[in-house]
Amino acid sequence: MASITIRSDVTVKLVNVSANDAMVAKAARVSTIGKQSAADDLPTEGLINFLMRDRHGSPFEHNSFTFLVEAPIFVAREHMRHRSGWSYNEESGRYKELEGAFYVPSDDRSIVQVGKPGAYEFVPGNLRQKRTASRSLPSAYTFAYEHYEDLIHNGIAREVARMVLPVGTFTSYYATCNARSLMHFLSLRTISVDARFPSFPQREIEMVAERMEREFRESMPHTHAAFVKHGRVAP
Amino acid sequence: MASITIRSDVTVKLVNVSANDAMVAKAARVSTIGKQSAADDLPTEGLINFLMRDRHGSPFEHNSFTFLVEAPIFVAREHMRHRSGWSYNEESGRYKELEGAFYVPSDDRSIVQVGKPGAYEFVPGNLRQKRTASRSLPSAYTFAYEHYEDLIHNGIAREVARMVLPVGTFTSYYATCNARSLMHFLSLRTISVDARFPSFPQREIEMVAERMEREFRESMPHTHAAFVKHGRVAP
Amino acid sequence: MASITIRSDVTVKLVNVSANDAMVAKAARVSTIGKQSAADDLPTEGLINFLMRDRHGSPFEHNSFTFLVEAPIFVAREHMRHRSGWSYNEESGRYKELEGAFYVPSDDRSIVQVGKPGAYEFVPGNLRQKRTASRSLPSAYTFAYEHYEDLIHNGIAREVARMVLPVGTFTSYYATCNARSLMHFLSLRTISVDARFPSFPQREIEMVAERMEREFRESMPHTHAAFVKHGRVAP
Amino acid sequence: MASITIRSDVTVKLVNVSANDAMVAKAARVSTIGKQSAADDLPTEGLINFLMRDRHGSPFEHNSFTFLVEAPIFVAREHMRHRSGWSYNEESGRYKELEGAFYVPSDDRSIVQVGKPGAYEFVPGNLRQKRTASRSLPSAYTFAYEHYEDLIHNGIAREVARMVLPVGTFTSYYATCNARSLMHFLSLRTISVDARFPSFPQREIEMVAERMEREFRESMPHTHAAFVKHGRVAP
Repeated sequence: MASITIRSDVTVKLVNVSANDAMVAKAARVSTIGKQSAADDLPTEGLINFLMRDRHGSPFEHNSFTFLVEAPIFVAREHMRHRSGWSYNEESGRYKELEGAFYVPSDDRSIVQVGKPGAYEFVPGNLRQKRTASRSLPSAYTFAYEHYEDLIHNGIAREVARMVLPVGTFTSYYATCNARSLMHFLSLRTISVDARFPSFPQREIEMVAERMEREFRESMPHTHAAFVKHGRVAP
Repeated sequence: MASITIRSDVTVKLVNVSANDAMVAKAARVSTIGKQSAADDLPTEGLINFLMRDRHGSPFEHNSFTFLVEAPIFVAREHMRHRSGWSYNEESGRYKELEGAFYVPSDDRSIVQVGKPGAYEFVPGNLRQKRTASRSLPSAYTFAYEHYEDLIHNGIAREVARMVLPVGTFTSYYATCNARSLMHFLSLRTISVDARFPSFPQREIEMVAERMEREFRESMPHTHAAFVKHGRVAP
Repeated sequence: MASITIRSDVTVKLVNVSANDAMVAKAARVSTIGKQSAADDLPTEGLINFLMRDRHGSPFEHNSFTFLVEAPIFVAREHMRHRSGWSYNEESGRYKELEGAFYVPSDDRSIVQVGKPGAYEFVPGNLRQKRTASRSLPSAYTFAYEHYEDLIHNGIAREVARMVLPVGTFTSYYATCNARSLMHFLSLRTISVDARFPSFPQREIEMVAERMEREFRESMPHTHAAFVKHGRVAP
Repeated sequence: MASITIRSDVTVKLVNVSANDAMVAKAARVSTIGKQSAADDLPTEGLINFLMRDRHGSPFEHNSFTFLVEAPIFVAREHMRHRSGWSYNEESGRYKELEGAFYVPSDDRSIVQVGKPGAYEFVPGNLRQKRTASRSLPSAYTFAYEHYEDLIHNGIAREVARMVLPVGTFTSYYATCNARSLMHFLSLRTISVDARFPSFPQREIEMVAERMEREFRESMPHTHAAFVKHGRVAP
């Protein structure tokens, strides 16, 4: 029987970063500092706030974050829908044999959905439901991975064998973005109940987003603060 | 036991198209036709050839193709890696219950890979291998879909239940592109043994690409001919 | 003496369009209509409102508008800063001799700026100022175009001669976009005093934007209405 | 009389860089290194060559170059036509008074164009032509800048006054890109007589490109070598 690994977490590692608040201000000031203009006395923090409020987005693009993410395929699928300002490289089920690591929600993840489309809420679920999920998912994963390994051992091409692997299988990918594209991602992939900019992401991609947001806040504290202040929407 | 549907094909339906060779020429000529310039006597076909050869790509962007594609998730995954000049909307495993349709390669699809990375070739496979694949895939799909339906019936959220569904599950999506982004897609997703621009796509996404290429050739015959003539690489 | 043409208007001609509200709804519904889901009874208008409010932007991308614009170079410069979802072809000062058409603001265009950065306002200007502008601009244009023609007639390359031409010189270009990228353009290039999404474009690019907005409203009335209702900001 | 500055050079300063060959290899290897795959023994240099040859472009995107460019407006115009993978911030003729610095070709720049469209060549020009250019350009620039300053001094808004400024006026802008988008730029903006990928850029944007290429080669020598080896075309 195939031995599989069960994980309830995701991993986000900051591999490279070239980003700070000062460069945002520098890029913005190229527009304005001139021969006879009054000296631009606005300090960096105030300038960043002004840019965020008035939706001057381009000064937030002259920087770069590269992350290495380990997450289930269904998360990678949602992530890679973000096209503008994002670059990706993902492990390939054509070029390598995939490892048997699979995602199962942790105990505190609400797994029952109530309400109507556009206004869903999640509740923990009763004991029976929790038991069903915690048994059914690993069982399905194990069966699938046994078939995958069997196909591989019979000489079937990896690109064919992988067809049986579930979207709960872990994958890993590099993702590179700039602060503007990252804020756009965060605005849609973290929960927001702000009536102006509501968003209801799936919990698992929010886990990725939360880890990225920590790195973003660390590198660009004033930019992050302005993002939060102005409704968590990208400029 | 869950009843599932097995498919060995993909569907590509042209939903909207606003594209022709004449508009390519018109867009290119805005650069050149002027007061005192000699009349631009080059006919459309010759002009398109010149643009393709000299890699003037932008005149090929003023048009639009919208396709509705039905294909397995692993194909959609590869497709959506094309970011520039492509727009997508896909059915959602969060918002709806997914149907039990799954992909199994047809008998004439080579399923055994030989050779080294960068120079793989595919061969049909022996009888035992064909039998393994044709039994194993449906068996894995059925087991997975039974678990999916069971989770749904137990009230587990769709976005959790879908974790067990394999990447061989059919999905459907709208994909909109222009001729330039389409040519880029075709150059990478159809087989090319041209030593200058080799490409070795997985057969299943090539099936999507072939169907798109037919529509492209139909709408823009001169552009398609020039694309083929100049090595099947996007300008 | 060179004979030049003075214009105070811009031209925006819709060359091709493949866009309607129904396709927005169709693209959105691919996400949701399913086997056991309740029938999606929301009519097109309501669905579009919901998409706009919740910032589901991708369903607005499966359409295409191609415009032919005649406007001064400084307007084209601002326009082409819009990268995402826009395609351009412009007449070339390298490949053709440029015509002597130049922009002068009309009488009712306020030409004096008061206030501080971030809160500028424009006022008409006094008689002396109006007179200065209406004399000085054509005088500068004429002098520049005389030098341009003289350089050309002396056999200097067009790409060198054009260096003297002012940014008030008319150019023409094709611009292709989809409804989402168009709404982003409109949100920044038409005046908005909405405290949440202020924008203060230069009047001349707003003239282009207003003409494009008319075509947009014509082709996609429900989408346009939802855009206006939700603060004139792109989803 | 207005005092203007004449320049025959452009400036390209590398402001930030986060780029090296090792990261290209790391991004590529995420696809292939696996549990049971043979160790990926290909050294970085060979791997990069393989990626370039087979047009695997995405591993070249996980890096970032930020340049500060000083160049005439007609160069900035051509540069900003590069949309994909490029970010820009430019000084603004609306927000500041522009300095009177203008471009005049140096003595060794060929200023006479011979041949037909698609096959132009440049020759130095005779003495009379050189004299015409070296007199006419500064004369036109001076006249234009006098009018600009006069309009400003009369209280006319900067955004109106700048209409008279020629495209030979210097501007400055930040430009951020990754190695892939930079290679695409270099492939089109440096001269190539390679029959497969010809390109005939204007000399002034080539001056910008040459300076960027030096920085690129410095940071990513193996990537640069592979780019040159495979015909100076972006993967």
